[in-house]
Amino acid sequence: MSGDPTQSFRDLIRRRLSSEAFDPRRPVGDDQIRALVADACEAPSSFNIQHWRFIAVRDAEARRRLCAAAFDQRQIMDAPVTFIVLGDCEGIDRLPEVMQRAVDEAVLPAGKAEAWQRLAKQIYETPQLARDEALRSASLAAMVMMLSAEAHGLASGPLIGFDAPRVKSEFHIADRFEPVMLLVVGYPIGGPASRKPRLTVDEVLVHDDGADL
Amino acid sequence: MSGDPTQSFRDLIRRRLSSEAFDPRRPVGDDQIRALVADACEAPSSFNIQHWRFIAVRDAEARRRLCAAAFDQRQIMDAPVTFIVLGDCEGIDRLPEVMQRAVDEAVLPAGKAEAWQRLAKQIYETPQLARDEALRSASLAAMVMMLSAEAHGLASGPLIGFDAPRVKSEFHIADRFEPVMLLVVGYPIGGPASRKPRLTVDEVLVHDDGADL
Repeated sequence: MSGDPTQSFRDLIRRRLSSEAFDPRRPVGDDQIRALVADACEAPSSFNIQHWRFIAVRDAEARRRLCAAAFDQRQIMDAPVTFIVLGDCEGIDRLPEVMQRAVDEAVLPAGKAEAWQRLAKQIYETPQLARDEALRSASLAAMVMMLSAEAHGLASGPLIGFDAPRVKSEFHIADRFEPVMLLVVGYPIGGPASRKPRLTVDEVLVHDDGADL
Repeated sequence: MSGDPTQSFRDLIRRRLSSEAFDPRRPVGDDQIRALVADACEAPSSFNIQHWRFIAVRDAEARRRLCAAAFDQRQIMDAPVTFIVLGDCEGIDRLPEVMQRAVDEAVLPAGKAEAWQRLAKQIYETPQLARDEALRSASLAAMVMMLSAEAHGLASGPLIGFDAPRVKSEFHIADRFEPVMLLVVGYPIGGPASRKPRLTVDEVLVHDDGADL
């Protein structure tokens, strides 16, 4: 970032607000969607498994079905695209391939890749840990996507109010994937959203001992 | 951001890598820690509940205990601070107060605040949904903190390999809080970390139908 990167970043994250009002007449193109996804993929993930997957819902009929499965939150109909952000609860399946690519690119020694695979298998054979990581990784990617949208002049609105089983069935999503969040994206309309006040640093931060929370 | 904000942001997220090597001689000060936490708090959260809490572990003896509970991952001893990022599974308790502040600041109409509270209570009386949201919100905040560290010239390394019950007991963390991630922060040492290759956009994105995943 040019200028003062600290200030620039702080401006970006303070400008990003969760929008509920999108301009239905301004489309978001293929290139923009791909750029947002590419940025989201820069998030870190456990063992670089990259548990995130994205369904870009753009077709009007598909948006209607998604809207109905999300308590009729109207912004899904107004905005040109809503991402269903998924976490892969069986992401460990992809690990050998992911590791091989890192070894091929010479950014991971083969011995370390093998050790990582053994360790990852141990951890993620516990279904709850596997699901937790799917939620975590998909959330990290979604956060980068929201900031990326802001940097691209777009607005975004994360939604967690939806009927997950219905979304899975309507969109033919395999059991292994957990819908972690819907992310509505488009151009803002009707003035900026209002920033909700945040807890102060002293209300959320303690030092060295959790008893002070 | 000055210059081309899209390019600046893309540079920032590509520069951020998960570091394992930190300079033990370079401290991170109180002001830096508070700035990172303040930035993290700009993440969105369900109903603005702000489920995130942070324990900044800096004291040498506390770091030793944390390191031992995290499979002796040495970077916790090297780095000047490791944040235990917590999610509040009973975050709903704070909602009346959070809503009141938004109403007082005139960014939320009182009627909407009441409707939100009823809806949030319905959703989060289900323990799994409450825990999911704690994981999600804490992860969103952690992602902003990692990018903030990068913007501040610091390096960070997220760790999910730790013994959660032991961390809770060692740091006197109340049951309601779930340790979602450890985030090691300090100045990098020994050359940049290597960027692990990412899946391509075509491998993680589909349109309108999850059957294509």
